[in-house]
Amino acid sequence: MSQDPLVVFTPSGKRGRFAVGTPILTAARQLGVDLDSVCGGRGICSKCQITPAYGEFPKHGVTVHEDALSDWNKVEQRYDDIRGLPKGRRLGCQATVQGDVVIDVPPESQVHKQVVRKRAEARDITLDPLVKLFYVAVEEPDMHEPSGDLERLVLALKEQWDLDDVKADLHILQSMQPILRKGDWKVTVAVHLGDVENPPRIMHLWPGYYEGAVYGVAIDLGSTTIAGHLCDLATGEVVASSGLMNPQIRFGEDLMSRVSYSMMNPTGAQEMTDAVREGLNTLFAQIASEAEIDTSLIMDVVVVCNPVMHHLLLGIDPFELGQAPFALATSDALRLRADDLNLSVHHSARVYLLPCIAGHVGADAAAVALSEAPDKSDDLVLVVDVGTNAEILLGDKTGVLACSSPTGPAFEGAQISAGQRAAPGAIERVEIDPATKEPRFKVIGSDLWSTDPGFDLAIATTGVTGICGSGIIEVIAEMRMAGLVDAGGLIGSPEQTGTDRCFADGRTYSYRLWDGDDANGPIAVTNADIRAIQMAKAALYSGARLLMDKRGVDQVDRVVLAGAFGAHISAKHAMVLGMIPDCPLDKVSSAGNAAGTGARIALLNRAARAEIEDTVRKIQKIETAVEPRFQEHFVNASAMPNAVDPFPILRGIVTLPDLSFNAGGGEGDTGRQRRRRRRG
Amino acid sequence: MSQDPLVVFTPSGKRGRFAVGTPILTAARQLGVDLDSVCGGRGICSKCQITPAYGEFPKHGVTVHEDALSDWNKVEQRYDDIRGLPKGRRLGCQATVQGDVVIDVPPESQVHKQVVRKRAEARDITLDPLVKLFYVAVEEPDMHEPSGDLERLVLALKEQWDLDDVKADLHILQSMQPILRKGDWKVTVAVHLGDVENPPRIMHLWPGYYEGAVYGVAIDLGSTTIAGHLCDLATGEVVASSGLMNPQIRFGEDLMSRVSYSMMNPTGAQEMTDAVREGLNTLFAQIASEAEIDTSLIMDVVVVCNPVMHHLLLGIDPFELGQAPFALATSDALRLRADDLNLSVHHSARVYLLPCIAGHVGADAAAVALSEAPDKSDDLVLVVDVGTNAEILLGDKTGVLACSSPTGPAFEGAQISAGQRAAPGAIERVEIDPATKEPRFKVIGSDLWSTDPGFDLAIATTGVTGICGSGIIEVIAEMRMAGLVDAGGLIGSPEQTGTDRCFADGRTYSYRLWDGDDANGPIAVTNADIRAIQMAKAALYSGARLLMDKRGVDQVDRVVLAGAFGAHISAKHAMVLGMIPDCPLDKVSSAGNAAGTGARIALLNRAARAEIEDTVRKIQKIETAVEPRFQEHFVNASAMPNAVDPFPILRGIVTLPDLSFNAGGGEGDTGRQRRRRRRG
Repeated sequence: MSQDPLVVFTPSGKRGRFAVGTPILTAARQLGVDLDSVCGGRGICSKCQITPAYGEFPKHGVTVHEDALSDWNKVEQRYDDIRGLPKGRRLGCQATVQGDVVIDVPPESQVHKQVVRKRAEARDITLDPLVKLFYVAVEEPDMHEPSGDLERLVLALKEQWDLDDVKADLHILQSMQPILRKGDWKVTVAVHLGDVENPPRIMHLWPGYYEGAVYGVAIDLGSTTIAGHLCDLATGEVVASSGLMNPQIRFGEDLMSRVSYSMMNPTGAQEMTDAVREGLNTLFAQIASEAEIDTSLIMDVVVVCNPVMHHLLLGIDPFELGQAPFALATSDALRLRADDLNLSVHHSARVYLLPCIAGHVGADAAAVALSEAPDKSDDLVLVVDVGTNAEILLGDKTGVLACSSPTGPAFEGAQISAGQRAAPGAIERVEIDPATKEPRFKVIGSDLWSTDPGFDLAIATTGVTGICGSGIIEVIAEMRMAGLVDAGGLIGSPEQTGTDRCFADGRTYSYRLWDGDDANGPIAVTNADIRAIQMAKAALYSGARLLMDKRGVDQVDRVVLAGAFGAHISAKHAMVLGMIPDCPLDKVSSAGNAAGTGARIALLNRAARAEIEDTVRKIQKIETAVEPRFQEHFVNASAMPNAVDPFPILRGIVTLPDLSFNAGGGEGDTGRQRRRRRRG
Repeated sequence: MSQDPLVVFTPSGKRGRFAVGTPILTAARQLGVDLDSVCGGRGICSKCQITPAYGEFPKHGVTVHEDALSDWNKVEQRYDDIRGLPKGRRLGCQATVQGDVVIDVPPESQVHKQVVRKRAEARDITLDPLVKLFYVAVEEPDMHEPSGDLERLVLALKEQWDLDDVKADLHILQSMQPILRKGDWKVTVAVHLGDVENPPRIMHLWPGYYEGAVYGVAIDLGSTTIAGHLCDLATGEVVASSGLMNPQIRFGEDLMSRVSYSMMNPTGAQEMTDAVREGLNTLFAQIASEAEIDTSLIMDVVVVCNPVMHHLLLGIDPFELGQAPFALATSDALRLRADDLNLSVHHSARVYLLPCIAGHVGADAAAVALSEAPDKSDDLVLVVDVGTNAEILLGDKTGVLACSSPTGPAFEGAQISAGQRAAPGAIERVEIDPATKEPRFKVIGSDLWSTDPGFDLAIATTGVTGICGSGIIEVIAEMRMAGLVDAGGLIGSPEQTGTDRCFADGRTYSYRLWDGDDANGPIAVTNADIRAIQMAKAALYSGARLLMDKRGVDQVDRVVLAGAFGAHISAKHAMVLGMIPDCPLDKVSSAGNAAGTGARIALLNRAARAEIEDTVRKIQKIETAVEPRFQEHFVNASAMPNAVDPFPILRGIVTLPDLSFNAGGGEGDTGRQRRRRRRG
């Protein structure tokens, strides 16, 4: 007797012999090959598409003849007639083994598809969401063996999909019976696969085979903006993205003023809770409308946010977060019913909140940790998420430390005389000629330097309206390199600097960056602007330095800048200011909205939730407010780049004139000012 | 070195040696002695009261001296000063071992107290509720080791009470922080201990030590009435009972008419759902008011009911229960949030519904099975819960069978010409002299026979208003024994019976039971009344007989009559009618409201829930509608007592004249009539 035919799957390389007539889907399952199916082999869903390869395969030691698979059967033919199969594809559940064959499983037919991330250094996400669809045929009721419809549905899920002990939410009990009968006892079931707190649950039923998708939303709930990505849970694709201003802004621009609002108004916390939930509902409506789906198809939600937003979303008064010891109500990850938060998504949808790391280091920082995975890094990485608070992570495979530091809003253009949010017309790039002290700059909306021909025309509609966060960093760093400002942060006089762009402005000097035009006045950098940036960057650096102390290192192998701001920052200029530790410039990278990405990972991969919860438990939390050395680091970090840290790598690339325009400069602000700004 | 002192606990008999200074509570815990404590040994709760015994104990081989326990310490003294300890009692957490001692643990100090049931044959209930109180001291927040308040509370529950992985409902997160601080980090925690679907959960927090109790309600949700028992979950005591009419009655007196209402009105099912939930909320308010507690202290609810009420309570359209194959939406036990059912009890309260056995055999029958435990019986027991449907259980340790049978409302006095509900003035006991054919009777509200002197005076206020269910059974059975009605159910003529109490009444004869007075007309039993009772009792008997067939037996060892009706029924008269199988009269007992008792067991003992779920899974369900022999049994059972079953035991006690007033009588009603009455 000849051997059974050999079936080789690519790309996995898994292989085995199967009797003639075995469906490819069956062979794949027996070998543990990752081949998708929603309909369970009924030729309906086409998720199990495979591509047979014909000819000689010396690598596999196989010759595949034209008749290696069965001819098309009626089911497959009907599917092709109605929906059309791509050329060369077969349905894995219908095509059966007839001879030796090599079967390629295309990426879209894999259950655990890879969701590719744009950044080269980032790990891809393995798709394994909490909500999946299953098509089942349910036994009809039988008076001789009475049992509930639900119990037979649950049995079908067990027998046909090996799902154990699935429960149902109440609304399923209420709606199930007519759906089962409408679908002639065949239904598509959306199942929440369960987690550490909850057994698997039926979330939704459709009569017959449901062709549509189900969705999840990953939300980055910031103090200022709320951003969401709508993901197809079967493909991992982001099908729509949307954002809006956090409606809580009417209660206070920064977090601390919102905490104050709640302290001073008996219903303040509740108003803000209502506002943020309304904001989320607006976002759901917006994003669903963009994707042309119903919000009830949103079946899973992941939220990352800072601790104050976290508490306000949950309806917890953030009172305790406004004062030492900054006690969180809860720091663990939360699995809640969307209904309990009054969120307008699917009835049975759950909301997952990532764990908070500490009272100032929230679920957003945890999401950054999930996205950037310092705990999996071979080299020592510093991850900085820059906002009004900077969240800072330092670590590698052997351990991770975390802290937050109150940078205040200066990096976002607030507290800066000509500061503004990043918007067309804002100066974002600056160069100053060290010889002539003359500047040139670019504004958002144009690629031309201000000294280029045509610049005036290019900015005709936007004008030059101010300096955005990245612009202020560049201009001050350029001033420092051009010898216009000393290490202590004092701007020199025209005499000291040799340029009349420096001009007396009260008791200090300012630097005129732009002369202005008919529409907008001149733009200058004042010494107060520099002081504000010094405070902010000193807070950031001293937080990082404190973690380096704890870790016992003087330098880091690489730096990752997270957050929207981090995406636009120039590594060189940031280092000239001493915002970040000395490090080769090519080892400074931007991670974009890492918190949002972390939310998306937690949405698409359920194991990632347990993983980040475990990571966060192991992270060593440092509270800067009670660290005696923080103050010392802060004072040293007020200088540009630093009063004591030498920055040798930086000094190898750039020239930092050794000037002092005033012996008393650079003492930094007071602890009281800093404390007042904390959490702002 | 001398040995450590010996500590002997009674009544458990557990003993061990403990170092001098060991608190009695500690010794008890180490030996696994069942000694309660809510405050964890802090001398606050006094749940650990023990009674030391002094003197010679030859049985234990111990002599207990006066100084066997430590002197009263300050904590114990303060407790006694403020609250007072009963004479001879000590606090087990404060009194320490000083010498050999015998310690009696009084029943009220046991965690797993026995809740004694009134009936001699019933098992007592071991108290082990799902909701318990725990007093804990919580670590204060520490900036050096940041963690959420909840996480430290959960840790305290773990460390101080060995509760693993306790979760918190959202409202706890929202209210917890001020309570922890108000209690100076000491709180009393109500914990739901978790079940197969849910992890343990914090339900409520009180600052400091909470002296009050928490409660559960066991509900018997009937088609006509809703009854509830409010139980103290720490003692098992019923502290209040209350009942009301099911407000759904306005949609139809019987279940079938309610199912019809839902079929004919698009919002019918929802209206009835709202009505029954409102009814439950009225009950909660009533019962809480009676006990002078707040409804928010009701932390656990158990409901038993028939399948139609079950579905309507859950908001499931009962449509499918109105037609073959009588498919339940779900038959398994349900654990729901009271909030999801809009029940006005504690926010975090859960509602437990016992499993349904089949489409006609509901959670009420399961509760009867839990209370009467046929599955634990050594002898073969028939349990009959008589209502408009009879639920019938037959079995012993080797297995249990169940069915329901559509008796209709005749047993409740409906369909009977002079029938009425059991109320003062209703005839409930009847005797007829076989020689004179003269009756005497008793009415509810008086202990006198109608022939006794003073009867007229005794009934002056109530009158004689009709015949209640037990009365109609007695009078027909007495008529049968007195030779006034034949086995087929025909009433004889005055000539045939020799009494003019039998009178022509249309085409048949009636029997005048009471002549009437100024206030009320005469009361007679018509031949139609007898027909109605024949149908009802035939349905009941043939259901029981069917189960006996399946079991392969011709008789049962004992009969338990459950339900309010069963409590008032005379075993002898029921057997004369042939309602129940032939059996020694002393083997027929009444279980009272066994369904309500089953609900109370499930409320007070969490293991009982798993137990009844397991029992119900194993019960063999028989659907009478599809059993070919049911019809045959029914026809035979229309005769009194039976056309084929001989009833030898009964015939040994009573005389059943062998008469026939008409050769064609007693053929029973048609299947169509019976089907129409099904589920009524």
